[in-house]
Amino acid sequence: MLCGMQAHDGPLTRLRKSHEQSVLDLLRKHGPLSRAELGTHSGLSRTTLYDIVAGLVDSGAVVTSTPQAEVRRRGRPVEKLSLNPDAGEAIGIDFARRAVHVSAVNVAHEMIGSASEAHASDLTWSQRADIAERLLGSLGGPAPGGTAGGGTVPEGTARGGAPAARTPRQGTLRLGSLSAIGVGVVGPIADPGGAGAHARSIEGLPGLLRERFGVPVLLDNNTRLAALAEAVWGAASDDGDVLYLRLSHGVGGGLVVGGSLHRGMYGMSGEFGHITVDPDGTPCECGGTGCLETVASLDAVLNRYRSAGGQAGDISAFLTAAASGDHTAHAVLERTGTDIGTVLAAVCNAVGPGVIVIGGELAQAGAALLEPVERALHTHVMPMARHRVRVRRASLGEAGSALGGIALALHETPLLSRYPQPVTEEHA
Amino acid sequence: MLCGMQAHDGPLTRLRKSHEQSVLDLLRKHGPLSRAELGTHSGLSRTTLYDIVAGLVDSGAVVTSTPQAEVRRRGRPVEKLSLNPDAGEAIGIDFARRAVHVSAVNVAHEMIGSASEAHASDLTWSQRADIAERLLGSLGGPAPGGTAGGGTVPEGTARGGAPAARTPRQGTLRLGSLSAIGVGVVGPIADPGGAGAHARSIEGLPGLLRERFGVPVLLDNNTRLAALAEAVWGAASDDGDVLYLRLSHGVGGGLVVGGSLHRGMYGMSGEFGHITVDPDGTPCECGGTGCLETVASLDAVLNRYRSAGGQAGDISAFLTAAASGDHTAHAVLERTGTDIGTVLAAVCNAVGPGVIVIGGELAQAGAALLEPVERALHTHVMPMARHRVRVRRASLGEAGSALGGIALALHETPLLSRYPQPVTEEHA
Repeated sequence: MLCGMQAHDGPLTRLRKSHEQSVLDLLRKHGPLSRAELGTHSGLSRTTLYDIVAGLVDSGAVVTSTPQAEVRRRGRPVEKLSLNPDAGEAIGIDFARRAVHVSAVNVAHEMIGSASEAHASDLTWSQRADIAERLLGSLGGPAPGGTAGGGTVPEGTARGGAPAARTPRQGTLRLGSLSAIGVGVVGPIADPGGAGAHARSIEGLPGLLRERFGVPVLLDNNTRLAALAEAVWGAASDDGDVLYLRLSHGVGGGLVVGGSLHRGMYGMSGEFGHITVDPDGTPCECGGTGCLETVASLDAVLNRYRSAGGQAGDISAFLTAAASGDHTAHAVLERTGTDIGTVLAAVCNAVGPGVIVIGGELAQAGAALLEPVERALHTHVMPMARHRVRVRRASLGEAGSALGGIALALHETPLLSRYPQPVTEEHA
Repeated sequence: MLCGMQAHDGPLTRLRKSHEQSVLDLLRKHGPLSRAELGTHSGLSRTTLYDIVAGLVDSGAVVTSTPQAEVRRRGRPVEKLSLNPDAGEAIGIDFARRAVHVSAVNVAHEMIGSASEAHASDLTWSQRADIAERLLGSLGGPAPGGTAGGGTVPEGTARGGAPAARTPRQGTLRLGSLSAIGVGVVGPIADPGGAGAHARSIEGLPGLLRERFGVPVLLDNNTRLAALAEAVWGAASDDGDVLYLRLSHGVGGGLVVGGSLHRGMYGMSGEFGHITVDPDGTPCECGGTGCLETVASLDAVLNRYRSAGGQAGDISAFLTAAASGDHTAHAVLERTGTDIGTVLAAVCNAVGPGVIVIGGELAQAGAALLEPVERALHTHVMPMARHRVRVRRASLGEAGSALGGIALALHETPLLSRYPQPVTEEHA
């Protein structure tokens, strides 16, 4: 065996190191886990795992705690393991078209806080970065009830491991121990996910942020970050591969495969809004014809509604009409849902996700939209998937993309950020 | 830093082990690489890499060689590094509908041999396994020129690192040092890629093979294995993410993402043949209507040709007619190519592959098919991808799936197969 030829260390010592790294990576990615959960995720035997964990706890890298919910149950409470929260924080910033959203958690996945501020659409990057810095400065500060504070993740709807605000950690945002910032921006960018991400629309932003925060800045499209957040902390946190579709002013989405954002070559993926639904349809901004976006964006839906005789000044009025049983609105949602389901079926046949999460303002229409989506999906998807792929509404709301930035920072930066970056899978 | 808290080893020793493992994994996956190529793939600095490699060569785990082509060039020849070929072999078997294909390479990616045998369609698994065992027994045997022998990979068309038959290694197939067998079968299977793969159609096969060969048996759909082989050794070996489409009696495919087969949840992915192209079209075997397979399978193409007045007994006759400039045949290929390109554009928008590889018998039509495919693709794909995604013909022919089985075995079994399996990315 090759392993026996290693000159420096026995294979078992080497293996132990690899196991330790895996346990640390899992806790970093998932937040607090019980020993049983760590066993399932790592595939390590019970004996090996207990031994590895004992070493990590002794060394101070990992801490144990017993969630309150567990203490109340009968029997021996289940201890959770997490990374030592003092080891660092991660920050997410979403630069949306007319608002800045920020969130911060520590490496133990404890929420430090979230905050948002709307702004005019013509601000410079420097002005927007000012807003972000100010919002971040307010996080965990001494004024609970202000714009900042823990628990922005809607705990009622979030599933599984949403960052817990169980212990408001006042004034605990220590930018000095930040390991990375994950940032969402509008529109397609090249080389997403890394510090080298760029696009004409974000010229200067990466440098600006690096200068202000002094840590690596990871950028990606904010719709894709919302997809990652739904997969990690939101509607799909219990599931495997996730297809996320956002129905808003534009129509876009993201794919989360094996827990990581799938980016595609040259940064293009998840462009579900530009899949053709009607080759004879209306021209699309992208240069195509009859793309999903031309029938499922907020404007397209409003237009369909108005040309069918409906009256609504904006999408809220349309949603209100639909909620009060307006037949025209329901017919429009039925038709739009059918188009969406047909496109989702094509993507499902190609990619085979476990769950489809639908977000954006139009998703607020609920069953009136999701039921026709599911019908069309089941009509066009392979029989194998028909009763397996589930459709859910997104649960994280407008904080989604900033939380996705955090997930990006926690998942994709090396734990040992002051050491040379460990080699990862080639992705040439 | 957490790493400083490790009780047992300094962080740098741990890092070195991780670097060594990465170098071994890269050589296992890619076959022979120069130090420069290893540097690119691993991201390690020149100094670190040279030091790591020196240790691995000293220990005998890695060997160096200078390819003949390099010796002939001017200047200092570039030395290639590979795993010690004595460390083991990997075998691929493709159980097609009416034939068994086998291939074997060693861990240095040197081809030991390939062989095929056609059979009746009603054989039992035990009879088919007999054929496979016999073919494998003949590999590298003393009778060059027989059914077995090196160099089955078409070297003229294969790009990059196709398994080289440079040194016919007579009688070198040592089943005793096998680390794994990768096996392709027809149809969808559950939990593909592992020893636990199953489906009604392969009942008993995994156990049968494990018993005969005494090593882990990894199973996957043979079309997906062909996709992996094209990505590793075939038409897309220089590229990143690959979308492979096979146009044969059925229409299917596979996605290779980051060098690995993307499988989807519950084993469904790459089912491009069942993406709807015409909701008002003909019923499909899958229960859908107007799927790509209903217009692009060999039978569908023949039917289109005949109903347009063309005469062809089988697909070879059709391809001959097309090659000799038959207008009806070209019109059919144009129409079929347009349907294919439309479906491929939808998948590209969702997944963003770098290259599309088209295989199967129909791909032999060449430009008459591929040009309309590219036109429709460019019409429907996002502008960002329009001039980036390339379309190529598959290059590995009927050996593809067996080679894909080898790639599966080389990529997905742990190097240290006699030790507990290293923890990998959770893929729950």
